[in-house]
Amino acid sequence: MVLLSGGLDSAVTLAVAARRDGRVCHAITFDYGQRHRHELEASDRVAASLGVGPERRLRLRIDLRAIGGSALTDDAIGVPKDGRSAGGAGGAAGEIPMTYVPARNLIFLSCAAGYAETIGAGSIYIGVNAVDFSGYPDCREPFLRAFERAAALGTRAGAEADEGGGGAVRVVSPLVHLSKAEIIRLGAELGVDYGLTHSCYDPVVRRGEVLACGGCDSCRIRREGFASAGVADPTRYA
Amino acid sequence: MVLLSGGLDSAVTLAVAARRDGRVCHAITFDYGQRHRHELEASDRVAASLGVGPERRLRLRIDLRAIGGSALTDDAIGVPKDGRSAGGAGGAAGEIPMTYVPARNLIFLSCAAGYAETIGAGSIYIGVNAVDFSGYPDCREPFLRAFERAAALGTRAGAEADEGGGGAVRVVSPLVHLSKAEIIRLGAELGVDYGLTHSCYDPVVRRGEVLACGGCDSCRIRREGFASAGVADPTRYA
Repeated sequence: MVLLSGGLDSAVTLAVAARRDGRVCHAITFDYGQRHRHELEASDRVAASLGVGPERRLRLRIDLRAIGGSALTDDAIGVPKDGRSAGGAGGAAGEIPMTYVPARNLIFLSCAAGYAETIGAGSIYIGVNAVDFSGYPDCREPFLRAFERAAALGTRAGAEADEGGGGAVRVVSPLVHLSKAEIIRLGAELGVDYGLTHSCYDPVVRRGEVLACGGCDSCRIRREGFASAGVADPTRYA
Repeated sequence: MVLLSGGLDSAVTLAVAARRDGRVCHAITFDYGQRHRHELEASDRVAASLGVGPERRLRLRIDLRAIGGSALTDDAIGVPKDGRSAGGAGGAAGEIPMTYVPARNLIFLSCAAGYAETIGAGSIYIGVNAVDFSGYPDCREPFLRAFERAAALGTRAGAEADEGGGGAVRVVSPLVHLSKAEIIRLGAELGVDYGLTHSCYDPVVRRGEVLACGGCDSCRIRREGFASAGVADPTRYA
């Protein structure tokens, strides 16, 4: 079970699960009212390119706009472009960015744990990364281990594991300690087509083509990552 | 922040939070594709009767049908009526009922934690109960404590608490060790109008009136609870 957003990190994560670890993958994508809805279409292209067909895809709708509190889901909060809002990259250390969505990974992992239980998947792969996004509390390993424990105690598989049967779901985060450049190199080795991925929080559509803004935190980190990895950047910027 | 389903237990939980503990309450209700959708209307009636107006209500849509795996969300799985499917009540000890929805409380608590973070609520009240529903792994205290830990590590409030500011959200489960009869007596003391609540998994609509089936696990446990509490049962059965 791979959390697939259509962004760069989750595409590399799916490639790691499918091609490096040799897993049969299901991919779950959340339609959560995000501003950057183009990533939903990107997720379909990425899944297909890595061999995950429609029968192993789940798109789950959950209205995080109703929960509010983030620039990514609330039209009244602007997407920051001054490079000061990201935690690790350019921002004050430890500061939580405006683009943080309250409890997003907690919610996504919980849904993935439910689906994993239904289909009998033993692992959830998630492309969180504590280096470039150190400001997001839900991208760090202590959170992932605590989630695993909660999921073990709150699901059938976990309850049965306590009694010696089955097994609780594991959370695998192959990118958590990698820099953006290292992630990009890893994906390039595994044949990820980065032209299919979408990272921009605030894209521009021009003559039917979706272009990255180039100015939001996500664009900045992505662009610097390609430069520093020495990998050609196929992103089309506005 | 109170998880309010419209059932008996969550109504008593809201009464405990508002009337016994004197909290200013917000109530969150999930429209998750449940078969027993009448409980959504019941949740509105219960909230209003306990002083929670529309401005402090959130109804969140999340399609747990897509996740599947339960008689409560999958029309292809029948609601059991033989009294053998509930864990604690009538069923084999430790057995997980067909009406268990994979990771439901994990998903619900995660969404509540996100919303609590947005509005600055310090506690989530949940009406889980380990006595009558001992077969549900996500109704037990070890799960709730593990969830609290994960939420503390995965949210802004928790991250700030680690640095000495703010505070992580607490999960309060006032019913967890009570029997159904004790819950019913507690709610009666707090003035809960049980005629507004809806518990049946498989209700019948007759001449515009919603009637409880009387045969599903939830009806059975509820009916026995009223009898054993010595409280008049206002439920209209088919």
